[in-house]
Amino acid sequence: MSERIPALDALTEALQRLPGVGPKSARRMVYHLLERDREGAQALARALDGALERIGHCRRCNNLSESELCPICASDHRDQSFLCVVESPSDIPAVEQAASFNGTYYVLMGRLSPLDGIGPEDLPFAGLDRRIAEGVTEVVVATNATVEGEATAHYIYDRLQPRGIRVTRLAHGVPLGGELEFVDGSTLDQALQRRYSLED
Amino acid sequence: MSERIPALDALTEALQRLPGVGPKSARRMVYHLLERDREGAQALARALDGALERIGHCRRCNNLSESELCPICASDHRDQSFLCVVESPSDIPAVEQAASFNGTYYVLMGRLSPLDGIGPEDLPFAGLDRRIAEGVTEVVVATNATVEGEATAHYIYDRLQPRGIRVTRLAHGVPLGGELEFVDGSTLDQALQRRYSLED
Repeated sequence: MSERIPALDALTEALQRLPGVGPKSARRMVYHLLERDREGAQALARALDGALERIGHCRRCNNLSESELCPICASDHRDQSFLCVVESPSDIPAVEQAASFNGTYYVLMGRLSPLDGIGPEDLPFAGLDRRIAEGVTEVVVATNATVEGEATAHYIYDRLQPRGIRVTRLAHGVPLGGELEFVDGSTLDQALQRRYSLED
Repeated sequence: MSERIPALDALTEALQRLPGVGPKSARRMVYHLLERDREGAQALARALDGALERIGHCRRCNNLSESELCPICASDHRDQSFLCVVESPSDIPAVEQAASFNGTYYVLMGRLSPLDGIGPEDLPFAGLDRRIAEGVTEVVVATNATVEGEATAHYIYDRLQPRGIRVTRLAHGVPLGGELEFVDGSTLDQALQRRYSLED
């Protein structure tokens, strides 16, 4: 079509910066917002402005935060001696779903990746050291189950274990509710090697 | 998780007003925008404001438009005597993909639906009559292939045919590239009844 409507094109293009949104869903969103939910469009614009203006990083754990200390670091109800290390702030809501976790976090803002030239000096390990010095006794490393994530976990183990910190890793295995035929070979391999007795 | 970050929650909620976006993808979008594409978030907020401020409806055809007349109505290159009637502005980009179409549009902003209490007086047929009076000779009715869309098409036929306007309907049948086993029975029924000779 040669007859364009610039403000429509601009919105369609801007929506495509959202992950998982291609040209077709962007167009569907545009018509939905302009035809059926102008109030929603207004609310989204304000929420974006609000988030951009107010959200930065917690100075203690690097989580996204509106205040200098994020709500988790500031909480009296959290076990501040139990630290979960994750790669990115977006990993925190995932771990928060685990009902049993009542510790705090430290966000690495990445992972070690020699191939990409990302070494220990490129990640905020100094901040991790400061956090450890505040009386942390156990660190569970919840980096991703990738080659880089594993390498990062081992680096953290080597760095913290000599200081008497217990360093653990999230278990690998078959997801609950997962059907065996959809589980990949390496995961099944781990699940077999780490099998446990039903007597336990 | 009990420790909330209000600006993050507000943005997650606002994103869920977009069609096809649930809690999980909204969360992914939030972290993407705030961690990796703050500029994109900025651009989206501005595009939403711009579209809300500038986009209304064409006073002649009801298409979305930044100006009183939409670019298609204002075009010299369009056949203004050939009118395609659609239910919603979002149908126009779909028809525009048909390379052979060079006519103009009229948007009904809905369809007849007795069950929902939507009768002829609830749709802008007066505007359609005005448009017809401007020298339209053929109307192709491109309402959806639903019971309501069909009923609306028949109503338009009854309304315009006595005035000597040629009223046509989009053909039904097997989509190009469609695999027969995925085509539903009613469509195949239509495709059989409207089969054409390969000699044509």
